[in-house]
Amino acid sequence: MVHSLVPSDRVEAASVYGRDGQKIGRIERLMLEKATGAVAYAVVKYGSLLGGLHRYPVPWNSLKYNLARDAYESDLTLEGLRNGPSELDGEAFDWGDRSPVYRHPQYWTV
Amino acid sequence: MVHSLVPSDRVEAASVYGRDGQKIGRIERLMLEKATGAVAYAVVKYGSLLGGLHRYPVPWNSLKYNLARDAYESDLTLEGLRNGPSELDGEAFDWGDRSPVYRHPQYWTV
Repeated sequence: MVHSLVPSDRVEAASVYGRDGQKIGRIERLMLEKATGAVAYAVVKYGSLLGGLHRYPVPWNSLKYNLARDAYESDLTLEGLRNGPSELDGEAFDWGDRSPVYRHPQYWTV
Repeated sequence: MVHSLVPSDRVEAASVYGRDGQKIGRIERLMLEKATGAVAYAVVKYGSLLGGLHRYPVPWNSLKYNLARDAYESDLTLEGLRNGPSELDGEAFDWGDRSPVYRHPQYWTV
């Protein structure tokens, strides 16, 4: 049976791969529009506490679930995300405000 | 600073109160439209393993966050939800398919 809905706690544990096949990371949480309940973007975690932990905003509409791979595939790449906004080791990045993301339109055109 | 976005893992731990002031329960997870990334409804847990654990679908647009209370308030009531679809102690209820919810239009008219 094909479901049109997916539980948030299942999404939150999923891996994400870029269009070049390279792993972007794992979804840590979703950022939701309070007013509408729409997912603005997923926060994708890459790296480790030792080597530096990056968090990237990945828009929902760039993510496609691949059942066979049990992972999401994105039109973006890790390389591309590195040129946009990210959070390193918990440094100041205001995830609650979408404006930092809006300033980087490459996230919203895929 | 007022944020327009909220992290999913913060929503998932929140309490929900009905319009009559009675507690409906706690949000356990959100059900998302795969295609659009819109939250269809929150799964709200009420009760305990001993006394019977119910899960109710509560649509996002019925939920308003009350900062002072640090909880969501709904236009619905626990009483009203009891007359709709719910899951008791993990019995068969297909949370992944929205049709059971659509068959109960009271969830979508608030």
